[in-house]
Parts: sequence; structure tokens; C-alpha cells
Amino acid sequence: MRIGILQGPEVADSPSANLERLGRAISTAGQPRLMITPEMFMTGYNIGPAATAAAAQAADGEWSAAIAALARQSGSAILYGYPERGIDGKVYNSAQLIDRDGRRLANHRKAHLFGEIDRSAFAEGDGEAVVTELDGVKIGLLICYEVEFPENVRLLALAGAEFVAVPTALMQPYTFIAREMVRTRAYENQVFLAYANRCGAEGDLTYLGQSCIVAPDGSDLARATTNEDVIAANLDFAGMAGSRALNTYLHDRRPEVYRPLTHPH
Amino acid sequence: MRIGILQGPEVADSPSANLERLGRAISTAGQPRLMITPEMFMTGYNIGPAATAAAAQAADGEWSAAIAALARQSGSAILYGYPERGIDGKVYNSAQLIDRDGRRLANHRKAHLFGEIDRSAFAEGDGEAVVTELDGVKIGLLICYEVEFPENVRLLALAGAEFVAVPTALMQPYTFIAREMVRTRAYENQVFLAYANRCGAEGDLTYLGQSCIVAPDGSDLARATTNEDVIAANLDFAGMAGSRALNTYLHDRRPEVYRPLTHPH
Repeated sequence: MRIGILQGPEVADSPSANLERLGRAISTAGQPRLMITPEMFMTGYNIGPAATAAAAQAADGEWSAAIAALARQSGSAILYGYPERGIDGKVYNSAQLIDRDGRRLANHRKAHLFGEIDRSAFAEGDGEAVVTELDGVKIGLLICYEVEFPENVRLLALAGAEFVAVPTALMQPYTFIAREMVRTRAYENQVFLAYANRCGAEGDLTYLGQSCIVAPDGSDLARATTNEDVIAANLDFAGMAGSRALNTYLHDRRPEVYRPLTHPH
Repeated sequence: MRIGILQGPEVADSPSANLERLGRAISTAGQPRLMITPEMFMTGYNIGPAATAAAAQAADGEWSAAIAALARQSGSAILYGYPERGIDGKVYNSAQLIDRDGRRLANHRKAHLFGEIDRSAFAEGDGEAVVTELDGVKIGLLICYEVEFPENVRLLALAGAEFVAVPTALMQPYTFIAREMVRTRAYENQVFLAYANRCGAEGDLTYLGQSCIVAPDGSDLARATTNEDVIAANLDFAGMAGSRALNTYLHDRRPEVYRPLTHPH
């Protein structure tokens, strides 16, 4: 299964310009089965709570129709980050996956909010594991900060995910996360993982780029520069068996020992 | 707090020769506050179930007296790996920490057994988090394979550990674990971590060496070669506050979301 990532925009842009950019990136990536954008791709991430709330749309709103049209036209499913206006009136930091036939397959709301930038703008999701299927491959969704908690990737792996897709907006000084931690997440759960980052400066944030697609053995299949970039890789799910036979973490866990992980602070 | 690691022996040796080697290593390491040996340091690891069972001693047996004497004489607390004969008659893969006054501070029994080599020789420990204190610093203990499960290091961090000490016997082809994964364990829990490996060949196993002492920012404070080696580093616990302020994982966890981590397979 071919996976592509658009890393960008490098300079903040309008939703319609971002959609055009995404269409070009799908071509550049070689029409992957799934194309992934960064966190809050439609609007920008560091735009402040008021602008975020004003822009937020329902999961089945206009953007979803535009993304569905692009997916049908390009032949690629699309996972995109956007500010979601819930039926409850709240604003969520969300990522939605729309298949190439235009169907909305899954919508994930960020459940581990990062600092004031998230908490001032978004309500937190319920943290339920979101796993969907594409051509028989189980795909789990997380957003940015969530992948830094080993608990979250493990929850997806236990729910059957073989591939974890992570729109993100990782900024200075957190280089360790893009270069090191996400590879350990793939290895310790024996999953493929795609980490789709923003780049450039946005307000007082400087994003790190370095989006990557990593294998269950922790190796980079593709890694972006720190500038606007498109990367892609073919994931060999049939070839995972060898790595999973060598690394039997999911089988060797002792859940009865882990109860304190669920105790309140 | 100064921490030392003896990586060895490179060639299998007797318990008494290993003790002499440990005494020399404590000098080489500059009389650290705590000296750490690899998994099953006293006897060797890949010696087969029969030899392991024949050698096994109680936690308060002769070896503990010899280690206590060396600790008193050298002025360093010692964490050492050995086969333990429990009161229940079972043999455990254990690591014991004895302070420089000769007191037995903590004994940890490996609770996540690795493959046939462990399962044919050892009963599994109960998995209770083992955290002890040295000069006011809380130290958690794990053995080898256990550190590869993010759940185990998290349990220690939640129990207050600021430093995790891991006797290990990591062999080919698992280089990723020594070089990458253990640094992520330190980072994601904001703890110091020492990973004390064996080296050389033992039967059909080739150990990887590359023992390391890593900081909460994921950086190597010291790293060994692949041969017999002694490393040491000073851990700056006062300086952890800045890193913990930047990485608030323990505070931002959502334990109520993690219940499926405790569900049976």
C-alpha cells in the first residue's frame, strides 16, 4: 500500500489554496492509496482561538465535500487535519479520513491536548481508539502530541491497527520526537507509522518538518526535509510477519500487571 | 549522583572472578554512588536451565554477603544480576541492589520473560513496581526485555522513579533497542536510565554491548563500546526540572482512557 505525505504549507495559506496544493502533492507522491496532511491543514494551527472557532466546520461540512471531490478525482484516500465544530457546539482539533470513493471512513478528535495553544482553542476528544480499514489494512489515527504517549499507540495496536497515521504540528525544540520517538512507537508496537508534520514559521512557532514514514523495525522508509516537501513509501504488510515473529511484544504483555496505568493522578 | 556500569564479562567466568572484575570496575568508574552490572552477572545468562538452577541462591545467600562486603569496601552501592532461588523453591531471573553500608535495599524478579531461554529456566516475577531510594533519589528496577514494554517504565515513573536501572543481556539482532528505544523510554517518562548490557559471545548468543546512561532529554551521557568496558556519568537530578517543565507527559496522561491496556488478551 502506497502512502504519501504532504509536508506544508510552509507559509500560511487559505483553505482553497491548501486544497490546490494537496491536489498537486498527490500527483507528486505518485497517486498513493492514502495521502496524509499535517494537523490543522485546512486553516493553519497557530491562528488563535477566535479564528479557529470562526473557521471550524462540521465533519460533514463543505471541506469534507471538497476533500471527497479531490479524493474521487485523484484516486487517493485523504487524511486531513481541520478544526471541527461538533454537534455539541464545541470546537475539536480533528483529522478525518475520506476514501477515494468519497466516503467518510473515520474522524478522530485529539484527546491529549498540548499546552495553552490547544487548551485555549479546543475541547478534548473522548480518547476512544479510532481504527478504520482501507483495502483490508487496519489504520489507527492520532494527532501530534498523542503519539508521544506510548499508551495511545498501544491502544491502537491492541485494537488491531497495523498502520498508525499521525497528522502533527511539531515545533522547536522537540526534534527528538520526530527523529527518534516515533520510530520507537513503530517498533514497540510492530506497526507502520506515518508522521505528517507542518514546516516553516507560523506566528511564534517554528515547525520542524522531518515528516516520516517508518517501518515496524524502526527504520525510515521516507523522511522529509525541514521545508515544504512531499514524501511517499510503499508499505509491505505481507512482509510484517517476520518482524512480528522476532518482536512478540503484543503477545508477551501482562495486562494484569498494568492496572496502575489506569489509576487517577 | 555518579552512576557506573560494568559491561562484561566478555568471556564467561566464575562468580568469584566476576566479583574481582566488579571490584576493579568500581575503581575504574571513579567509585560511583551506584555501580550496575548486566543481567545474570554472577553466573552468565546462556548457561542452560540445569546449570542456572544448580547455581541459584537465595536473595540473602552467599553472593549477597560477598556483594555487601565489596560495597562496604568500595563505598559504592551495587546492583547485580543473578539467578535467585525463592523460598517457594522456584528460580527467578533477579537483580538486587545492595547499599554501600551492606543493606539489601531492593530485589526485583524479571516479570516479562524473553522467549525459550528465559521460560525454560525461570519462573516469572509478580510485576509489582520495584522502586527504592538512594540519597533521596527514587530508583526503579527492570531487567532486559522488560524495558522494551513502555508499560513497565511508565509504572515505575508513576511510582515516583526518577532513575531506572536496567541490567540486561541484549543480543543480535536487536541493536535498535540499545541505540534507540531506551533513549525514548527516558524521554517519554522524563527519567534518567542506565542500561547495563553483556558483551561477547556466550553459546549461540552474541551480545551487543553498547551499554548506556541516558538523560531525560534522550541524550547519551555515556555509551560503551561493544567489548568489555566500564562507563560512568553524573546524573543531575536538580537539573531535571527544566526538562520536566518542557515535557509534561506524566501530568497530561488521561488514565481513564487507558483501561483497555489492562484487558486480558
